[in-house]
Amino acid sequence: MNLPSRVILKEVGPRDGLQHEKRSVSIANKVTWINMLSDSGLRYIECSSFVSSSWIPALSDAEEVFKQIKRHPDAIYCALVPNVKGMERALASNVDELSVFISASGTHNRKNINKSKQETYPVLDKVIKGSLAEKKRVRGYISMVFGCPYEGEIAIDEVKKICEKLFHLGVYEISLGDTIGIAHPKQVERLLTELKNYFGSLDNFALHFHDTRGLGIANSLVGLQAGIQTFDGSLGGLGGCPYAKGASGNIATEDLAFMLEQMGIATFIQPEALMNAAIFIEKVLNHNLPSHQLNLYKKGVDSWNLFAQK
Amino acid sequence: MNLPSRVILKEVGPRDGLQHEKRSVSIANKVTWINMLSDSGLRYIECSSFVSSSWIPALSDAEEVFKQIKRHPDAIYCALVPNVKGMERALASNVDELSVFISASGTHNRKNINKSKQETYPVLDKVIKGSLAEKKRVRGYISMVFGCPYEGEIAIDEVKKICEKLFHLGVYEISLGDTIGIAHPKQVERLLTELKNYFGSLDNFALHFHDTRGLGIANSLVGLQAGIQTFDGSLGGLGGCPYAKGASGNIATEDLAFMLEQMGIATFIQPEALMNAAIFIEKVLNHNLPSHQLNLYKKGVDSWNLFAQK
Repeated sequence: MNLPSRVILKEVGPRDGLQHEKRSVSIANKVTWINMLSDSGLRYIECSSFVSSSWIPALSDAEEVFKQIKRHPDAIYCALVPNVKGMERALASNVDELSVFISASGTHNRKNINKSKQETYPVLDKVIKGSLAEKKRVRGYISMVFGCPYEGEIAIDEVKKICEKLFHLGVYEISLGDTIGIAHPKQVERLLTELKNYFGSLDNFALHFHDTRGLGIANSLVGLQAGIQTFDGSLGGLGGCPYAKGASGNIATEDLAFMLEQMGIATFIQPEALMNAAIFIEKVLNHNLPSHQLNLYKKGVDSWNLFAQK
Repeated sequence: MNLPSRVILKEVGPRDGLQHEKRSVSIANKVTWINMLSDSGLRYIECSSFVSSSWIPALSDAEEVFKQIKRHPDAIYCALVPNVKGMERALASNVDELSVFISASGTHNRKNINKSKQETYPVLDKVIKGSLAEKKRVRGYISMVFGCPYEGEIAIDEVKKICEKLFHLGVYEISLGDTIGIAHPKQVERLLTELKNYFGSLDNFALHFHDTRGLGIANSLVGLQAGIQTFDGSLGGLGGCPYAKGASGNIATEDLAFMLEQMGIATFIQPEALMNAAIFIEKVLNHNLPSHQLNLYKKGVDSWNLFAQK
């Protein structure tokens, strides 16, 4: 098994996770949680989204969150932005990095931001140019890469075309999103093989799996074997997707981290601090999160220390 | 990705799953459930265990279960037996196949059946000889193959030795058990590579994962890639393990089946019938089961038909 020696875990819980929660989370709790995340060794945290508050009310406090968090010197605090207005707000909040997004499915893209893919590129162009002018790197998300509830499976050629366009516009990394959690290992391998052949390497790609059908960790393993070294996750497995009934959260950061550490791949995570951050947000949200590690920890199992459990 | 064209799913829910349940399940409900399992396309069902009723009260009705189930002509109905007395009861109940077991960990073996490994082999010898004399095949389980709460990681050489002994005694297949759910993909690959080198092929091996840490499906994928074509699972992800706090059930049969079918590997499962069987046992047990497919099905998602979900 050909595996990397280290992996970057990008924590998207405060954005992708919290945006779907019915219960509103106070600014103070968000700030506490984000601080706990960076204290647990996570070095990349997507803290919020600078979108219109009518669109995602749960994230309307992005400015305050960025103002109040304690910035760990080694951590990158980023935010998602849909347009130039969002970019301006993000830059005014001194985010370290911005993320932009587009859907591989035209239908989903239109339902999400009321634009065709072609109409989206000029907006991304402005956001990326504006961010780079301020010396802020930009990450690109492509959602529904493995299929969409409206259009079915997405042609790999279309994914390639979007990637090429995003790199051309200036993103440094593309996160390939299985937004509704339908990807399977063979499909992941097929896509990554084609992208690797086309782009020469997978160094500038990340994977973003949701665990709706329980295949998120297996899909991540395929990604690792193909050469991916950056994975998005959400602490506790927090999250969902409004476009597919029953779609569940991102893969749980701690479950992926556990697998990686067991296989000797460094994540620089402090397990106990990470588990306490998961306990904290679960209490705040007042519902159980699906993470396996969290559920063991709650039962008093020192799960990362495998044989201390008798 | 080198994958088989078909896989045999061995359903152990009625034995490995139900033995840990606090709520007692009536004979009628067990029989109905087992009939639903065979109606859903499962062709191998471990229905019970012929052990002393003081040891596992939940399975003390093994005779009645075997008497009342409707035998599907293409399905194999098997039972676990710990000793000659269990074998005699199983043979009197006309089971199609018997399973025997031993732990890779001496300490666990002693806690489980109050015998050292060396003391166990003569018992297995009698059971296997007695079964073969009645033209019944015998399957061997090795538990704690990837590690044990008492002894830590188990040396691969020890696992090889036990396998060799079991094959020599006459089992046709060995199911390698991650009884407490601690295996990780690299470890699975390492063990299977060594077993393949030593025994020439993996044709007579099966994998038996528990999903305690959420790695069961990823571990199964590694098994598939190594050449394993037989997997144990438990519908709904039912089960546990009394020897490790927090240990959860087997991998959910339906989650594994979903991944296999998506990758073009035939399982001969009828998804809707399988989901109805999972709903049935969940209602009987009166607690939620962890399976992803089951949870989607309960939300009204036609999950196997991926793009019918919008």
